[in-house]
Amino acid sequence: MIIFLAELIGTLLLILLGDGVVANVVLKNSKGYGAGWMVITTGWAIAVAVPALIFGSYSGAHFNPALTIAFAVIGKVAWSEVPIYLAGQFIGGFLGAVLVFVHNYDHFKCSEGKEDKLAVFCTGPAIRNKIINFTCEVIGTFVLVFGILGIGAQNLTNGVGTLFVGLLIWGIGLSLGGTTGYAINPARDLAPRIAHAVLPIPNKGDSDWDYSWIPVVGPIIGGVLGALVYTMLF
Amino acid sequence: MIIFLAELIGTLLLILLGDGVVANVVLKNSKGYGAGWMVITTGWAIAVAVPALIFGSYSGAHFNPALTIAFAVIGKVAWSEVPIYLAGQFIGGFLGAVLVFVHNYDHFKCSEGKEDKLAVFCTGPAIRNKIINFTCEVIGTFVLVFGILGIGAQNLTNGVGTLFVGLLIWGIGLSLGGTTGYAINPARDLAPRIAHAVLPIPNKGDSDWDYSWIPVVGPIIGGVLGALVYTMLF
Amino acid sequence: MIIFLAELIGTLLLILLGDGVVANVVLKNSKGYGAGWMVITTGWAIAVAVPALIFGSYSGAHFNPALTIAFAVIGKVAWSEVPIYLAGQFIGGFLGAVLVFVHNYDHFKCSEGKEDKLAVFCTGPAIRNKIINFTCEVIGTFVLVFGILGIGAQNLTNGVGTLFVGLLIWGIGLSLGGTTGYAINPARDLAPRIAHAVLPIPNKGDSDWDYSWIPVVGPIIGGVLGALVYTMLF
Amino acid sequence: MIIFLAELIGTLLLILLGDGVVANVVLKNSKGYGAGWMVITTGWAIAVAVPALIFGSYSGAHFNPALTIAFAVIGKVAWSEVPIYLAGQFIGGFLGAVLVFVHNYDHFKCSEGKEDKLAVFCTGPAIRNKIINFTCEVIGTFVLVFGILGIGAQNLTNGVGTLFVGLLIWGIGLSLGGTTGYAINPARDLAPRIAHAVLPIPNKGDSDWDYSWIPVVGPIIGGVLGALVYTMLF
Repeated sequence: MIIFLAELIGTLLLILLGDGVVANVVLKNSKGYGAGWMVITTGWAIAVAVPALIFGSYSGAHFNPALTIAFAVIGKVAWSEVPIYLAGQFIGGFLGAVLVFVHNYDHFKCSEGKEDKLAVFCTGPAIRNKIINFTCEVIGTFVLVFGILGIGAQNLTNGVGTLFVGLLIWGIGLSLGGTTGYAINPARDLAPRIAHAVLPIPNKGDSDWDYSWIPVVGPIIGGVLGALVYTMLF
Repeated sequence: MIIFLAELIGTLLLILLGDGVVANVVLKNSKGYGAGWMVITTGWAIAVAVPALIFGSYSGAHFNPALTIAFAVIGKVAWSEVPIYLAGQFIGGFLGAVLVFVHNYDHFKCSEGKEDKLAVFCTGPAIRNKIINFTCEVIGTFVLVFGILGIGAQNLTNGVGTLFVGLLIWGIGLSLGGTTGYAINPARDLAPRIAHAVLPIPNKGDSDWDYSWIPVVGPIIGGVLGALVYTMLF
Repeated sequence: MIIFLAELIGTLLLILLGDGVVANVVLKNSKGYGAGWMVITTGWAIAVAVPALIFGSYSGAHFNPALTIAFAVIGKVAWSEVPIYLAGQFIGGFLGAVLVFVHNYDHFKCSEGKEDKLAVFCTGPAIRNKIINFTCEVIGTFVLVFGILGIGAQNLTNGVGTLFVGLLIWGIGLSLGGTTGYAINPARDLAPRIAHAVLPIPNKGDSDWDYSWIPVVGPIIGGVLGALVYTMLF
Repeated sequence: MIIFLAELIGTLLLILLGDGVVANVVLKNSKGYGAGWMVITTGWAIAVAVPALIFGSYSGAHFNPALTIAFAVIGKVAWSEVPIYLAGQFIGGFLGAVLVFVHNYDHFKCSEGKEDKLAVFCTGPAIRNKIINFTCEVIGTFVLVFGILGIGAQNLTNGVGTLFVGLLIWGIGLSLGGTTGYAINPARDLAPRIAHAVLPIPNKGDSDWDYSWIPVVGPIIGGVLGALVYTMLF
């Protein structure tokens, strides 16, 4: 139960702060409008690092089905617990997206760009090419899971390890995020996409369901590969 | 007495550095003029983190009536001490704002925008809508107090915990600050607003008293809710 | 063998994230297009710091022939191990560059600038002047190796020392990188340059072999000087 | 002797990285040209933090006559050692500025702005007003010395305290640096100003000696006041 709760609230905060920074940068009249890639990637890095610190001792602070599944594959999480993790992650992700909508309601109202409104909730490719977009999500999540395992193996003082996880997220965003927007997390992408579909967002476009499987399947495969390669080597 | 002094000087430094970075970005001819949201949010994060480190052992380094009241509600601070905290916070906030005025006097003189001059001192909504603006301040301060309690519970090495508080402030600014300017602190907003009203600022406009209750009441309610929910869950 | 593997994977990650951030900023239609020097230098700093943490206990996390040779000169690494280090570094650097090419394939296709495409892989001078360009690489790598030795001598808690190495890289990029793009590492420059030469990059220009010895020889000399001066003084 | 050497090399690195980042941002054709206030303040923060870590155990890592004199006034440094500190600081500052000139020689040649060339070496006011400029340097250095004493009193784990000193410098730059360029250090300003006067900089202007006493006297007074107030209160 504590796992469910920790994953739910942690993912809620992740999406509130992560989708929140996108809203701040892409929606009209926001004080951070047009502030750019540095603001977006820094916001996402903190959106992971702070909840990761708070909930680490309760659930391991996954907030990410790709991480949970990868950990199950290498035996760091019991398969029986995976559904509890995923339920918390998807519910938390959905609720976080609802809060972002409420928080930025007037900015959704005065923005025109339908793609910008979708971008607040979920990722989309800079250049649409399913094979390469998929590959990008595989690479990004490989680095994420490989990196988390490598950082975790250092037995750092509590807090310092979480700082490095934050740096890892920051780095993935800065360096690998330019092509697909670095979902690297099915709950981060799919749960807010569902919120986009069901919420009464003024003048919204479609939710790009055609693309939606890529930031779900890509991260799962990349994450499992990252975990397997790490375990094989070290 | 040490609590009063620590809160006074800490809040003075908070406002000197926090309002100071806004002055640097919005006032004409300043070397940081137009430097944007990243500079503003980084400046505010440091404005909290450094005084929080220095004064943490004296008073807990609140610098924020919403935090003090929330801590009183959950029994982490005695109600009898609350007036001492608040007095230090409001006096420190006012004096910090006076220093910002002195420091940037010539830049106030050569700037024309009346709203920019007010923005140095206190927050204002990107889009005026009292219900949503109020909600934004509730959400932001909920995250602040919930996060501070969660970080505090980790028993981190001295210093590393304060780094995470700085990250939390940075994240709230980047992700939730675009709508109302993230007051999330009644003393941070009201004390400098009073300074704006009484200081001989060249060619200033009104102090927007109509809005002034929102960054006072919103944070108090959000902070108390954050503390109650955290205590209930963990 | 573990040294070879750690240096290979570490340098692969270094180039994937380091060349990756350049691709994000200079290639057309990327989400970080035009995001500037702050994004590039932050990306490179993280590209060093995270792998340095993960692989430090296996190989010392050099990822840089100039560092390996400098350490051999002052007796911190056996000369017999140097070829193992260098082999891992160059192979890892080449493979990292291949991944950057795959990751950004469509962005290479739609970008026109031949110099930008080369800049993803390797450094080039802002103003071509071999004597001064060479001097810049000597100075930058002197600071790098001197700084790494100085940080290492502090016996910091695991993790905190690596944070400072990240800060050092960040600082070298921000302060000394504007003239030659701060290769400060022969493997970081030469291995991706070879990748640029052999990969089927759409509409690419030449690989600027005329300049290519400077970011190889300059860093080696600067690194050795930095190690000698540090050892002499402290 | 070790104090002299540590202060000399530390201040040399401080100016090489600190003046270096200004050169990168203000001189034409540099890769960081026009990168703005965030880059400048981050560069300076690292320029302090990394040498402070390396040389802290040798000399306390002052690199700043205002800090040395303030520490002498409150008895943390013997007056007999002050000349050794100051000699190291001024010689190191001068040599660092010479290296910045060599490193950026071609960029000095192709830049036209005489004020920009001077700005690489030393500070100047955004709006010239000696009384307020002086006050700004007093306030900035007061915060610097008060903050260093407050951080030092926390007995943080080695490294974490130095991170906070870096944050303090970053914050002073972001929040208080817009008016006078935050010299807050006589050696940082005067030694490179002398270098500007004597070096054969192509097409340079005068060294603004009329202003030069402000970033010397202001920091000394501000630093002493900061140390006295801190000692009085805590």
